[in-house]
Amino acid sequence: MFFASDNWAGAHPAIAAALTASASGFAAAYGSSDLDKLVAERFNQIFEREVEVFFVATGTAANSLGMASVSRPGGVVLAHREAHMIEDESGAPEYLTGGARVKPVEGALGKIDPARLEEAILHPATRFPHGGQAMAVSVTQSTESGTVYSLDEIETIGAVARRHGLPFHMDGARFANALVALGTTPAEMTWKRGVDLLSFGGTKNGCWCAEAVVFMDPKAATQFPFLRMRAGQLFSKSRFVAAQFDAYLRDDLWLQNALHANTMAARLAAAIEASPHARLAWKPDANEVFAIIGKAQSDALRKAGATFYEWTVPAELEVGSDEKLFRLVTSFATTSEDVERFAELIA
Amino acid sequence: MFFASDNWAGAHPAIAAALTASASGFAAAYGSSDLDKLVAERFNQIFEREVEVFFVATGTAANSLGMASVSRPGGVVLAHREAHMIEDESGAPEYLTGGARVKPVEGALGKIDPARLEEAILHPATRFPHGGQAMAVSVTQSTESGTVYSLDEIETIGAVARRHGLPFHMDGARFANALVALGTTPAEMTWKRGVDLLSFGGTKNGCWCAEAVVFMDPKAATQFPFLRMRAGQLFSKSRFVAAQFDAYLRDDLWLQNALHANTMAARLAAAIEASPHARLAWKPDANEVFAIIGKAQSDALRKAGATFYEWTVPAELEVGSDEKLFRLVTSFATTSEDVERFAELIA
Amino acid sequence: MFFASDNWAGAHPAIAAALTASASGFAAAYGSSDLDKLVAERFNQIFEREVEVFFVATGTAANSLGMASVSRPGGVVLAHREAHMIEDESGAPEYLTGGARVKPVEGALGKIDPARLEEAILHPATRFPHGGQAMAVSVTQSTESGTVYSLDEIETIGAVARRHGLPFHMDGARFANALVALGTTPAEMTWKRGVDLLSFGGTKNGCWCAEAVVFMDPKAATQFPFLRMRAGQLFSKSRFVAAQFDAYLRDDLWLQNALHANTMAARLAAAIEASPHARLAWKPDANEVFAIIGKAQSDALRKAGATFYEWTVPAELEVGSDEKLFRLVTSFATTSEDVERFAELIA
Amino acid sequence: MFFASDNWAGAHPAIAAALTASASGFAAAYGSSDLDKLVAERFNQIFEREVEVFFVATGTAANSLGMASVSRPGGVVLAHREAHMIEDESGAPEYLTGGARVKPVEGALGKIDPARLEEAILHPATRFPHGGQAMAVSVTQSTESGTVYSLDEIETIGAVARRHGLPFHMDGARFANALVALGTTPAEMTWKRGVDLLSFGGTKNGCWCAEAVVFMDPKAATQFPFLRMRAGQLFSKSRFVAAQFDAYLRDDLWLQNALHANTMAARLAAAIEASPHARLAWKPDANEVFAIIGKAQSDALRKAGATFYEWTVPAELEVGSDEKLFRLVTSFATTSEDVERFAELIA
Repeated sequence: MFFASDNWAGAHPAIAAALTASASGFAAAYGSSDLDKLVAERFNQIFEREVEVFFVATGTAANSLGMASVSRPGGVVLAHREAHMIEDESGAPEYLTGGARVKPVEGALGKIDPARLEEAILHPATRFPHGGQAMAVSVTQSTESGTVYSLDEIETIGAVARRHGLPFHMDGARFANALVALGTTPAEMTWKRGVDLLSFGGTKNGCWCAEAVVFMDPKAATQFPFLRMRAGQLFSKSRFVAAQFDAYLRDDLWLQNALHANTMAARLAAAIEASPHARLAWKPDANEVFAIIGKAQSDALRKAGATFYEWTVPAELEVGSDEKLFRLVTSFATTSEDVERFAELIA
Repeated sequence: MFFASDNWAGAHPAIAAALTASASGFAAAYGSSDLDKLVAERFNQIFEREVEVFFVATGTAANSLGMASVSRPGGVVLAHREAHMIEDESGAPEYLTGGARVKPVEGALGKIDPARLEEAILHPATRFPHGGQAMAVSVTQSTESGTVYSLDEIETIGAVARRHGLPFHMDGARFANALVALGTTPAEMTWKRGVDLLSFGGTKNGCWCAEAVVFMDPKAATQFPFLRMRAGQLFSKSRFVAAQFDAYLRDDLWLQNALHANTMAARLAAAIEASPHARLAWKPDANEVFAIIGKAQSDALRKAGATFYEWTVPAELEVGSDEKLFRLVTSFATTSEDVERFAELIA
Repeated sequence: MFFASDNWAGAHPAIAAALTASASGFAAAYGSSDLDKLVAERFNQIFEREVEVFFVATGTAANSLGMASVSRPGGVVLAHREAHMIEDESGAPEYLTGGARVKPVEGALGKIDPARLEEAILHPATRFPHGGQAMAVSVTQSTESGTVYSLDEIETIGAVARRHGLPFHMDGARFANALVALGTTPAEMTWKRGVDLLSFGGTKNGCWCAEAVVFMDPKAATQFPFLRMRAGQLFSKSRFVAAQFDAYLRDDLWLQNALHANTMAARLAAAIEASPHARLAWKPDANEVFAIIGKAQSDALRKAGATFYEWTVPAELEVGSDEKLFRLVTSFATTSEDVERFAELIA
Repeated sequence: MFFASDNWAGAHPAIAAALTASASGFAAAYGSSDLDKLVAERFNQIFEREVEVFFVATGTAANSLGMASVSRPGGVVLAHREAHMIEDESGAPEYLTGGARVKPVEGALGKIDPARLEEAILHPATRFPHGGQAMAVSVTQSTESGTVYSLDEIETIGAVARRHGLPFHMDGARFANALVALGTTPAEMTWKRGVDLLSFGGTKNGCWCAEAVVFMDPKAATQFPFLRMRAGQLFSKSRFVAAQFDAYLRDDLWLQNALHANTMAARLAAAIEASPHARLAWKPDANEVFAIIGKAQSDALRKAGATFYEWTVPAELEVGSDEKLFRLVTSFATTSEDVERFAELIA
């Protein structure tokens, strides 16, 4: 019963096979192979426009170098207070941008509140040389709370960003899970709603290591080859990422994987809702379930072999003294058996 | 006839197979899986002491974060004037150390001249607050010129570094090629000669993506987990690197791959030496051959399907006006057929 | 009626005279002149121990380079949410430390709440490679709200810092104002309460440009000469700062200046408290008065020639819809006449 | 006999007087006072066009932040191998640009050789993501060798920069000395020859602390207020610099000071040329004299009270085994008496 994280899974068999298939033969290095070019073209199709795509090693690198590409002196990125860039990247955005800051914006359920965003942008410390200057707005889709911004919500935030002349970034470490949850297209969920810059993650959804920065406007990407190389993020045998993305994006494998993960999460959520020993912290939209579970019950679950992490309780959530907040994550590799067994244990 | 670079090859079949074999099942992320630990133990055995090993995405990252781990304000790294850190990393060492500099030291055949190293360390600009302070010495083994430092040469440079209290780093992007060329052991080529810090490369020698920073003294590595995470260089599914290194280091695969590459390079060199249309720029020690070839002949070779890069002529080399300097690189995947065909063409 | 800021004043006549007196003659540059050494010795006397003192150009530089001297990868400084480092330095701490972050800690009246500090230090994002590591605690004395930490309050925060092995920094841009308010000594207000590192400001209290970083333990300062030089903060004609500090610290001029400023602020506060058109936002302890003034009244004051800035309303303060929060700052140069005139206008 | 450096002098009496005169009264801080504006206007007149001028604390800061204003990822500044940015700034350009490099270009007598500059720009490591990208050309006027580029020489280098689309920077720490040596105007020596960006130094020529970055095109300066603030280089009581520049630029004081320094240097040079115990290393153009003096003679000079520094011998200079290279610097404060006494001693 593996619910610790979607990065505890390995690689999807089709992706492993694709990697092996491309292992032999010679190909140009550093992203200029035929397979690299084919995958770049595939991104154009998926996003229904000419985009510019760059592979990097990790989601943290994608976010940080994305921010570096729009960095300004004294720059301030506005992101949700629980954003990965704030809580889980050890200062990589600050480091790789050469000192820009990521300022937390409030909002329920992991989503930026547009009114608070506007306030943060208008705050003196993001408008004058003494304090700094707002330089980007970033949302996470799906969010760190397992929720998903609706298309309208993305559009509203995009409008705030645009009104203040700020690039709009989406951290899509779990892009496919959000896409499937909304039943929409990549184009609708990004540039048609104002997104300029995307961290496109494949690793959590069935790849070994496949992360990319996608520029919706190729003209904005001219300095990125230097930014990436300078950060030690340009793979020499780049085709090993290309091969993964090729399989990932072929025959809707990525959407199927995400759909499976979301479905498993919904079943987990239903089991928790039905349980007398546990309750949902909030309704999950994608592949992360946040549950408040009694101490005794959670110990028993772990003893029975379930893996999952305790989570920091947000200010707005009330948790009893003998309860704790836990996060359970599903993935392409989560089995129905594991979910059913968990459901039985918690019932 | 692929002689452009050792990173034009894909992955060795045994490594591809190992990757596929580890694709299924769940495992702890971020380097804490059983396989990660097993590989860490394997490094201890290979180096005949307890070392600390960290996977990173690229050789540039290994070098730059290695330097970041010994960085000091106003710091200056002394490296050969043709070092990868100076010529081929787009300023990554400066960027990822937060501003340290890499100062070129002279020396023939890609190797630091110890006397010039001493001079550089004693130069005012590396000793006082006005100029900065020397912070590390770095050698590349095998070098960017395809030569290999002898054990004595490494020891001599190590002694200079130690005398001035400077950490001694080895850029081992082609570590195995040097090891095989010298017929020695990892321990003999590193810490027994004073090396403190190693960039250990597997990518050019048969892996997809397997680079590591090795600290000979684990106590020197306490801040590295933060340095690596902050640079977006911590793989979530770290076991995909572990699986590659596991196969790479098993049954001496890495040494066999390197031996093959070096042997192919030696054959290429012999063919060039015997040719009336070309000559060796200098004697190769590992898997890179530098040849001076007449313009007509090099055009003909390319037309016949050989890939190789033109190279910048070092100051001490004389090249005729109708000649050019070229680099030819072999790898585990170089075929005897390609080498023989090239030999025939150039004869 | 100049209440905009204490940096709208010029230099105290005694300091201007000292500067002129030292203008002729030759002296060693970069801080090694006799006068520089004399002032360094004067700091030892004032702090009742051997300290190490470094002049820098601004308070922002003092704070940022102080933090750089204790920086660690992924490092997080804990400071009050309204600290100068967070609100007014345009990201200099992040920039000059190479990416450390300053995390806001809550607390009333501009002072860190020790319990919230402990929480912030224990938060996962400041303890593991994924999030980062706490690297320092910083208080501002007197605070940005014009309040002053008591000696006990400083000691309590110092104890939290020490318990977690964190250096304790004090931003003393208005150090003298706090000292006079508490009626204590520099030693009692700093190292005897656990302070390791001090930004010592003279500019706001009668100098042209006299800011310093003071290390309570000289052994902690070995890298600072390089840090300062590398930041372009080493004055060649350093004695022009030494001359200012020499006059500033002579015959208690600095304490007299601060006492005058605090006294003027107390009179302003009394006038505001007595006014039917205004009220104090909170009781001032030093030379900054925060007042809630009706819109009509504040317009009238400005029309009559009073200069002062509007201030961002903290979350915990209630301000009526026709009122605003203003900050009034006094200095050594504030005249009784100006204060009396303001008192009459507001009465 | 003070010939150690032009920064061993204090402030010119007129400048000290101006500072005292502006000490009283209140004025807006951070560069927005009337005096700041008046000085900005004065710069427009001197340069015969609308420029944008920013005060900073040191020449190192001026150079480094100037470079930061044109920085690009993987960026490489081309400067003479003995440039202050390379030899004397402890890595500040790398640090404050967030990792750009300064690449040494060869050339005799402290001046960039235009052909070598072109070579350096065309080198692969400054043209592709792997190596980096040239981002600026910088000359020092007068040079670190005490020579002065002719207007034609500046124009030639400016043309190379322009041909490659690179901003052209002049380090004018001794701008006035060069100006007087050439008998030309600021406009002729800068933008009329292609200079885009100038570090304008007043400190070595009679001020306490007066350094500025001058943008020939104000449109290029929009981000500089943030760059400067973020580096802790924005003086609060900025008028103390303005007051110095006001006096410095009034009634040609700056040109008179420089003329005096140059004249004193010429006399020193004549005395050295006439001496049987010493000779000129090369002909000085401004206020720095480089002399080869026998060991016994130099000891005697020092014993007699002369201060001057030994200098690193450039590769192209031959110095006997019992000789050393020394630098003697004159300033506005150098007295004829000191020069005459030195002349007698060396005769």
